[in-house]
Amino acid sequence: MRVAILGTGLIGASIGLGLRERVKGVYVVGYDRSRQALDAARKRKAVDEVVWSAAEAVREADVVVLAVPVLAIKPLLEEIKDAVRPDAVITDTGSSKAEIMRWAREILPGHAGVVAGHPMAGKTEFGPEAAEETLFEGARWVIVPAVEASSEAITIITNIAKTLGATPMVMDAEEHDAYVAAISHLPMMAAMALFSMGRASEAWPELSLLAAGGFRDMTRLAGTDPDMAYDIAMTNKENIAHWIDRYVVALQELRRRLVDVEGEDEFYRLLAATNLDHAEYKYGKVGREEKPVGESQSAAGLSDYLAGAWIRDKFNEVMQASEDRLRQMDEEERMRRRI
Amino acid sequence: MRVAILGTGLIGASIGLGLRERVKGVYVVGYDRSRQALDAARKRKAVDEVVWSAAEAVREADVVVLAVPVLAIKPLLEEIKDAVRPDAVITDTGSSKAEIMRWAREILPGHAGVVAGHPMAGKTEFGPEAAEETLFEGARWVIVPAVEASSEAITIITNIAKTLGATPMVMDAEEHDAYVAAISHLPMMAAMALFSMGRASEAWPELSLLAAGGFRDMTRLAGTDPDMAYDIAMTNKENIAHWIDRYVVALQELRRRLVDVEGEDEFYRLLAATNLDHAEYKYGKVGREEKPVGESQSAAGLSDYLAGAWIRDKFNEVMQASEDRLRQMDEEERMRRRI
Repeated sequence: MRVAILGTGLIGASIGLGLRERVKGVYVVGYDRSRQALDAARKRKAVDEVVWSAAEAVREADVVVLAVPVLAIKPLLEEIKDAVRPDAVITDTGSSKAEIMRWAREILPGHAGVVAGHPMAGKTEFGPEAAEETLFEGARWVIVPAVEASSEAITIITNIAKTLGATPMVMDAEEHDAYVAAISHLPMMAAMALFSMGRASEAWPELSLLAAGGFRDMTRLAGTDPDMAYDIAMTNKENIAHWIDRYVVALQELRRRLVDVEGEDEFYRLLAATNLDHAEYKYGKVGREEKPVGESQSAAGLSDYLAGAWIRDKFNEVMQASEDRLRQMDEEERMRRRI
Repeated sequence: MRVAILGTGLIGASIGLGLRERVKGVYVVGYDRSRQALDAARKRKAVDEVVWSAAEAVREADVVVLAVPVLAIKPLLEEIKDAVRPDAVITDTGSSKAEIMRWAREILPGHAGVVAGHPMAGKTEFGPEAAEETLFEGARWVIVPAVEASSEAITIITNIAKTLGATPMVMDAEEHDAYVAAISHLPMMAAMALFSMGRASEAWPELSLLAAGGFRDMTRLAGTDPDMAYDIAMTNKENIAHWIDRYVVALQELRRRLVDVEGEDEFYRLLAATNLDHAEYKYGKVGREEKPVGESQSAAGLSDYLAGAWIRDKFNEVMQASEDRLRQMDEEERMRRRI
């Protein structure tokens, strides 16, 4: 299998490393507009060969991976359209999908190999130096087949995702864009707004000294590569704006409950419930892949079962603590009234 | 020196571990309402001795540390007020300070040993099992002396903070509460609102599967111990509400710029500037302790200098990339018009 990776940054180089390590007989050709990124990818052994044009890279490729920022995908499709084989499989790793599918329909009409993708993995560091063969282990890999995509093409991309340790999830582009706006693009915007708010404050010299783990974690995504952030923002504007609005409503609701003196008990219940829900999300089984307990007796099955037991214990513990706390608050209230 | 630690959770037990490891001749007496926490602290060797009442713990203590959630501090002060020595130094580790200073004035009027504190360190895990001798290394430790506090008492608490590896920062209670609302309490609320927003969505089964590093990091603080979160919220309501309002304004401003089609170049500049400011915050020298370059030729001085050089390099790199990008966008714009 001959794979052309166009864009040898963090994601492209990690795919190259993973494929070369795990797929026998694979041959990876790398291309990047930046000579520096291409040299670094070669040094990291993420590619077998580098070439100096996108068209040359794809000419004999079975699989073409476009691993560049979203807005760079359109010109790249133009560059390769005459060179790419009619039976090649073409995928990408872009963070939004609806625009990309539109461009593919326009530039490669009727091509049966278009199966877009989005590995839900990454880190703030970028460039081939940060690449890791194991970057996609345990991640979801969204797969968005074009209407004309052949089942063979879908299978090939699904297998690549699995080979790299990820779990494929097939969905359509609009669905994908709405979801990632909520769990990926909004968090990025929320981090930027929080950081900018602090940075713009007159007290920033003091704030930045006092800022500990909480502020640091909550603003980490303000360090996202601006090119990547810009492309995401420009190609998923409406969904992101929608989720910013919902987030503002959630913040205002929390504020209302916070300052509501009559509802102080309610506020405690809210905090306890949030903590519990979060524990379930962090440690528990969620989503549509939930399996019945006892399905498997393998080590994984046992650890799943133990995670289930842990959640029940955590639930009981939090509920017990909440009950105790509320009882104590009631008593204190009564005592205050007696005085 | 005899130290009484009231509350042997994460913070109390970490202080005990640190003092026992680093201060010759220290003797630490532990007390906790929870027998389990007390046993665990003894097992961790965070204390030399455990006792079963707060009054007994403080009776002969030179230093008393109240390491309990904020709302538990008032009843604890009542419990110890008749037993604590008039020349003892009394400190705490509470996350808000104005209310605590009010209670101390009311319950221990004129006592010359009240020097409140807030080590700006912690983690989501709680309890003595999670305690670490090095928890405070590199952290700031806010110190809030009462008006009547003696300079000896202030020195003792300052030295304890330094001994545990922290940098003391003296400020008044109101100043502290306003600052931590911005960089600690708001991030906690922002994480809770983000998590609750996602959790409440009908698409949560899909969202929770797709959620990768960004959402996970941005909602980590939704796992804060609800008792601690409640006490913080109740004793610093107005400041937190103020910063939620400012955060909402920052989000709405970012949204306005995002959807402003005329201002797409401006939006890219905003992202690039945010990225740069964030890099400066993350790696650079900030705040009122900035030192002139070349002040010291020690290893620390050199690394400070290199950090400075790194920031300049990063600045140049981001600015260059921004310029390139903007030039390219201009060209594309012109090309579109020509067509």
